[in-house]
Amino acid sequence: MIDSAQNPRFKQLLKLKQKKQRLEEGLFLVEGEHLVEEAIASGYCELLIANAAVPYWNQDTLILSPVLLKQLSELESSKLIFALCRIPKEQKPGKRVLLLDGIQDPGNLGTLIRSAAAFDFDTIVYENTVDVYSQKVIRSSQGALFKLSLISMELSAFINAHKDYQYYGTSVNQGLDVRDIVPKNPKIAIVLGNEGQGVREDILKLVNQVITIPMAKAESLNVGVAGSIIMYHFSLF
Amino acid sequence: MIDSAQNPRFKQLLKLKQKKQRLEEGLFLVEGEHLVEEAIASGYCELLIANAAVPYWNQDTLILSPVLLKQLSELESSKLIFALCRIPKEQKPGKRVLLLDGIQDPGNLGTLIRSAAAFDFDTIVYENTVDVYSQKVIRSSQGALFKLSLISMELSAFINAHKDYQYYGTSVNQGLDVRDIVPKNPKIAIVLGNEGQGVREDILKLVNQVITIPMAKAESLNVGVAGSIIMYHFSLF
Repeated sequence: MIDSAQNPRFKQLLKLKQKKQRLEEGLFLVEGEHLVEEAIASGYCELLIANAAVPYWNQDTLILSPVLLKQLSELESSKLIFALCRIPKEQKPGKRVLLLDGIQDPGNLGTLIRSAAAFDFDTIVYENTVDVYSQKVIRSSQGALFKLSLISMELSAFINAHKDYQYYGTSVNQGLDVRDIVPKNPKIAIVLGNEGQGVREDILKLVNQVITIPMAKAESLNVGVAGSIIMYHFSLF
Repeated sequence: MIDSAQNPRFKQLLKLKQKKQRLEEGLFLVEGEHLVEEAIASGYCELLIANAAVPYWNQDTLILSPVLLKQLSELESSKLIFALCRIPKEQKPGKRVLLLDGIQDPGNLGTLIRSAAAFDFDTIVYENTVDVYSQKVIRSSQGALFKLSLISMELSAFINAHKDYQYYGTSVNQGLDVRDIVPKNPKIAIVLGNEGQGVREDILKLVNQVITIPMAKAESLNVGVAGSIIMYHFSLF
């Protein structure tokens, strides 16, 4: 059992709270029974971290003292169980893709990942967003991130390299009414933009069609909601 | 200008960060230019609070020192301008109502209020939810709460007192597919439940129809997203 905060292994785990460290090591932590279970099921989990071995999950477990587990925790109340997971490499895009252009709020990113899984969108491509592997994003996603292909890449590069998708950009009021869109191509990609600025102009120029959700005058939607409604629309086909 | 943290007026404002105090005094604060503007437009604003008078808004202004304004602030970066608003009394329900049963996350509540305004739902009735007048909720709502009737009331009492609505309960998998619902009654009320437990059973028994959003197997949606998709669906009629 590790019980010293100076232990190098523990210090390495603690550093995974920082995005930079996660990317360098290709590792991230998830906290809480439900998420740990999802991590194990996905095959991303390399090691459990807890106060005692958890025999029913049949995973190697690093034992930490309760005090150290508490330091690792980002939750106010938690069973203090963690999974150390490996960021998967070279994921391939599937049939239905969400392209995220600068999403900044962890809750919004997590919500979009959760809704993607619910509406059979299998891939997220992201540029300039908040870190997908932060605990806040993972929690809001309810573990759905383990079920999707997650690809960090310039959106313009993705679009130029994958000509076989029908690309839909989104705009608060400049596009075709989403309700009138009947997709013909089974490969669909939807671009969602930053909370304040929306999708960058030069990305909007690359899409096949700009779409808009009709709303009461002068209102707007949260980007997690807007993206979910559009995915819901396409899930009807 | 008030520059002492012991000033009774300032201490009263500071206490408005607590729900109990807001309800007792019938007052709440909003922060930031955009929200202050919405508060003024709505007629809820009684007083501006800032470091100097803001002549173009033509409102009485209480001048506080920058140090005290900073103490009042809940934002990391802010222009430190606030509106002191009065909680409106006896609001009447309109034609399209959202009944909220124990929503606990401020972001979810704010998102639902924002989406309600976007999809022409004019009324929120809430029981056991996080406080509507907390700054987090107001921020997530993007000020949309100023445009709706907000009614704190037991949901069962509301339903029993208003027989002229068509009530739709929501369930993750027990209801009719929402896509098959064509409303006939122009007065619609949708019940959304707690993030973990959903709508209470005894409330579900009171509704005319339980509905469900179809999803890929074993997934679920954030309640802010689910409620928004359902309101979007009804906005098509």
